[in-house]
Amino acid sequence: MTNSHRPVPTPPRPTDPGRELRRSVATVCLSGTLGDKLAAAAAAGFDGIELFENDLVVSAWSPAEVRARCADLGLTVELYQPFRDFEAVPADLLRANLTRAEHKFDVLADLGADTLLVCSSVAPAAVDDDALAAEQLRLLADRAAARGIRIAYEALAWGRHVSTWDHAWRIVDRADHPALGICLDSFHVLSREVDPAGIAGIPPGKIFFLQLADAPHLRMDVLQWSRHHRLFPGQGAFDLAGFVRLVLSAGYAGPLSLEVFNDVFRQSDPARTAVDAMRSLVHLEDGLHQAERPDLRFRRLPAAPGLTGYAFTEFAVDGRSGPVLQDVLRGLGFTHTGQHRSKPVQLWEQGDCRVVLNSAVTRPQASGTAAISAFALTTADPHRGVDRAGALHAPVLPRRRGPAEAELAAVAAPDGTSVFLAEPDDGWRADFLPTGNEVAGEAGLVGTDHLGLTQPFDHFDEAGLFYRSVLGLRRLGTEEYAAPFGLMRSRGFTDPDRTVRLALTVAVLRRGDWAPSVADPQHVAFGTDDIFGTAAALDRLGADTLKISDNYYADLVARFGLDEETVARLRRYGILYDRDPGGGELLHLYTPVYGGRIFFEVLQRRAGYDGFGDANAPVRMAAHRHQRLAET
Amino acid sequence: MTNSHRPVPTPPRPTDPGRELRRSVATVCLSGTLGDKLAAAAAAGFDGIELFENDLVVSAWSPAEVRARCADLGLTVELYQPFRDFEAVPADLLRANLTRAEHKFDVLADLGADTLLVCSSVAPAAVDDDALAAEQLRLLADRAAARGIRIAYEALAWGRHVSTWDHAWRIVDRADHPALGICLDSFHVLSREVDPAGIAGIPPGKIFFLQLADAPHLRMDVLQWSRHHRLFPGQGAFDLAGFVRLVLSAGYAGPLSLEVFNDVFRQSDPARTAVDAMRSLVHLEDGLHQAERPDLRFRRLPAAPGLTGYAFTEFAVDGRSGPVLQDVLRGLGFTHTGQHRSKPVQLWEQGDCRVVLNSAVTRPQASGTAAISAFALTTADPHRGVDRAGALHAPVLPRRRGPAEAELAAVAAPDGTSVFLAEPDDGWRADFLPTGNEVAGEAGLVGTDHLGLTQPFDHFDEAGLFYRSVLGLRRLGTEEYAAPFGLMRSRGFTDPDRTVRLALTVAVLRRGDWAPSVADPQHVAFGTDDIFGTAAALDRLGADTLKISDNYYADLVARFGLDEETVARLRRYGILYDRDPGGGELLHLYTPVYGGRIFFEVLQRRAGYDGFGDANAPVRMAAHRHQRLAET
Repeated sequence: MTNSHRPVPTPPRPTDPGRELRRSVATVCLSGTLGDKLAAAAAAGFDGIELFENDLVVSAWSPAEVRARCADLGLTVELYQPFRDFEAVPADLLRANLTRAEHKFDVLADLGADTLLVCSSVAPAAVDDDALAAEQLRLLADRAAARGIRIAYEALAWGRHVSTWDHAWRIVDRADHPALGICLDSFHVLSREVDPAGIAGIPPGKIFFLQLADAPHLRMDVLQWSRHHRLFPGQGAFDLAGFVRLVLSAGYAGPLSLEVFNDVFRQSDPARTAVDAMRSLVHLEDGLHQAERPDLRFRRLPAAPGLTGYAFTEFAVDGRSGPVLQDVLRGLGFTHTGQHRSKPVQLWEQGDCRVVLNSAVTRPQASGTAAISAFALTTADPHRGVDRAGALHAPVLPRRRGPAEAELAAVAAPDGTSVFLAEPDDGWRADFLPTGNEVAGEAGLVGTDHLGLTQPFDHFDEAGLFYRSVLGLRRLGTEEYAAPFGLMRSRGFTDPDRTVRLALTVAVLRRGDWAPSVADPQHVAFGTDDIFGTAAALDRLGADTLKISDNYYADLVARFGLDEETVARLRRYGILYDRDPGGGELLHLYTPVYGGRIFFEVLQRRAGYDGFGDANAPVRMAAHRHQRLAET
Repeated sequence: MTNSHRPVPTPPRPTDPGRELRRSVATVCLSGTLGDKLAAAAAAGFDGIELFENDLVVSAWSPAEVRARCADLGLTVELYQPFRDFEAVPADLLRANLTRAEHKFDVLADLGADTLLVCSSVAPAAVDDDALAAEQLRLLADRAAARGIRIAYEALAWGRHVSTWDHAWRIVDRADHPALGICLDSFHVLSREVDPAGIAGIPPGKIFFLQLADAPHLRMDVLQWSRHHRLFPGQGAFDLAGFVRLVLSAGYAGPLSLEVFNDVFRQSDPARTAVDAMRSLVHLEDGLHQAERPDLRFRRLPAAPGLTGYAFTEFAVDGRSGPVLQDVLRGLGFTHTGQHRSKPVQLWEQGDCRVVLNSAVTRPQASGTAAISAFALTTADPHRGVDRAGALHAPVLPRRRGPAEAELAAVAAPDGTSVFLAEPDDGWRADFLPTGNEVAGEAGLVGTDHLGLTQPFDHFDEAGLFYRSVLGLRRLGTEEYAAPFGLMRSRGFTDPDRTVRLALTVAVLRRGDWAPSVADPQHVAFGTDDIFGTAAALDRLGADTLKISDNYYADLVARFGLDEETVARLRRYGILYDRDPGGGELLHLYTPVYGGRIFFEVLQRRAGYDGFGDANAPVRMAAHRHQRLAET
């Protein structure tokens, strides 16, 4: 690596002291025509876009019209991409490639764009010759410079001869042309084994562009992984903040630009996707402030709310589903303790478990059904939490939309559920008049362990990022399992103190007509310190618990080597069992499904069991299906 | 390999001379609860099932109840599977594993099943020691034999130490126990590099079970490939008939059993999937008759119909969409030549292109829309074709359901389209009275090149097998491309003489709410020998052709190096261009979308171009979207 680079004069890139990084999104991240994509990017607050060639090619707008449209929307075309299979070719092909490039320079000129991405060749005609690649890229950069254009050279992870960032950099370094730099793509860098630490040593001004994508760890062909499974930062497994800090330490001051190829985002509402994308960048930037860049100003978020538990879960009910849930709660040992002063809203309690039945929620749902319409978490500073949510482009809901008239800060989750933040002083209870009802019979439920929320197919990764960024939750594991009506994915979240847990589930493929409605239920799981005692109490209270197949218990004996007596006790109460590799145990039971899609779980965690019993989910789903068939 | 094996006495397996092979399907192939799966398998005509353990574990039916249910339905439990991680372990684990096995023997006894599948271990505790594996499997077989049970040992392609069929066979051979044999799974064998030819040398009676699955060639982790992307025979890329003939030459006479893990089948109507599965086995068996097995009788199909071309395409129209399509056809140079004697059905013609507009079809579709309701192909022996379709479990439609009263043999394709088979003598025209209309102006369309049919998401692979098996079509390539509203997959089919082509398309992921209706259109493509002459004629006739973006033509220059004059001619008429690696060229143009989801294509193939211009499909889809937005 040399330090002999001249400064980059073409074109001038001002670096105002203390300026903010620009935020950009590639058009490939968004569904629709170019018009749909630009509108969505602008509405979500992006400063610029990467224009993917195909989006221009199929567009009815000329490049000049695209430029004008972008200007109207306050967007800059930060990059035009990709230009493929250029370098390290025989002379005749080089000539053809330069002609091809001149056509693209025309397009950039009309677009008002100044940077063209050239990705490392995958063509059979390319030879493995760094000197030749450098020479030809220098030639290209020379022609580009004459048009006021820069060439950003990028190593594709599956490039024929150049597939790592350091190899691409050696060629750019060797070519030594002011209009030639490299483009770094976090996916291409982090999906490979090559250590990215050396990026910090790239001379200032030679990183022309930075593309960001997260991804889950997958064992698959890297090209397929890249083209189908990228995610926005914070939705996958890569350390994007660490990566961006490296790039910043090399002096980069260009845009943070998202380039995410994702099969779901490709067919989802682009306005939603763009907000999700912006949220990922805002959250990422919040983790960059340690970077030693006095010339830059990193926008910070209010700190995440320190959560201390679930205050309550609210169900939207109607005249038919309300009484059903009242009976169910009574059977579970709850008491109707409070009645709202002015609305048809009931509070039910047991231990630290609180459920609100709200007949006043105007939420679209079929008659006779129930749904989780809201949940409330306790935190010392609800307003800071809501400020953070707003900064993360989450829809902050008008105050006083809660079941109680007391002021509750609230924000809408991606599936429409309202998330309330409440102070731990129970101030929200002020609007409930005590019923004076005697506690009829409790079942030993001590608190809300978790909510299980089946997510709309298009919004699973969006929801995960929402809960991570807005509430500061951490991701627990992700499980995939075969259920009776198709594959399911389940992902757990919790706060650092494990006071709040959430399990988000989604069908791995969007469901079709065949799957019955019980395939997508929601549930609340209550904890107990004595599952057998609770089960016996539920029995006495006449609770309706889910009948579990005898085959399950026969298999349990074979699978875990449990003694017959324990298994007999489990079977008696329909308690399911799971054990983790560390010896932690989960004992849990379920109710049937009520009001179309609601069920309850009662569970006991032992010896640090940290999961959600996903191994038993297919058993539960089949049992719910049997229940439904028996009813009809 | 030794030949010292004793015959297998436990249990007796009769091999009646001239008997038929049994047909079996694994419960994992089908969606739903065990009840759904058994009902579907029986209705489709299977003789037996492989019972996947989880399907039993989650079932409300005890093993004895499953046995009774199967008996009622005429099904045998051919195999219980899988038993995992048994062999080559330390002594204490062996004891536990044997205890575990005894539990499963109990289950098999209750089920009335006699074969347990043991798959090669993936457990870290297993050691790489064939002698130990053989010794322990021998022990297991001994215990099994005492219960009248056989052990079928199978190499998982991702087994820890045993991952190939020949390795599994060496261990079984070494163990040399009459109740121990191998299970061959076509996926595990054909997904690996090991030559399967040696299978023919396995001594008679030692292949205990045969599992069949096809798969597309995919570059991915073999476990993921196996668990998500298997297909029924004839839907993928494997030579299943060749594989089964090998197994038969080793004396195998057990069931042909489908074991297909497929994400789509897991969530589709099991009744449909089971018929698709049965069709795949019937078609496969038709290719087995060369096997030298005088003791077996292979069921044969009537030969595939020799196709000679498209007779006509029928559109279901109504009072609003009918006149629209009449105008469009007139603009394309068609003449209304025939009127049905008794029904509101019109025949339109040009060259060898024939279109029927049928207002009498009672097909569910929205008011004002049009849809391809049927197409007719010519063949010398329509009745043989329909007999073949019936033997392949395709729904044969009542005669005289065609637009004409003349007898037309017909079968329903998976998307509901009627496929008519007509004799080449045009007898079907007898019921149309000539209108005597003069030919107003033709555009040089010479015949129907292909139909483009977007398939329902759940039925894409089913449709491919339907057209391959029922009509004897061959598969052309499969393309995947990024379109404005998500990824698309397109697969071409044709007869050996290239007289009939079909392009089936499907969204790679099931579409959600965002995708507009123009994302799933149907179309008819007419051929011309002179695309520019036809385009000029269409211009004169006032045809409405689809406006293609100027950007497309600018890119065409860069991409293919076409001369400016040619590109100017293409642009003038909205003609798109594609070139294949062999120099074949496609020139084609489109109409807008009419009646909700119908458009027409006009094309010229040059120099043997054999595809469907999929590279241009996103351009067309964006243009259709622009058209729709301009209309609204």
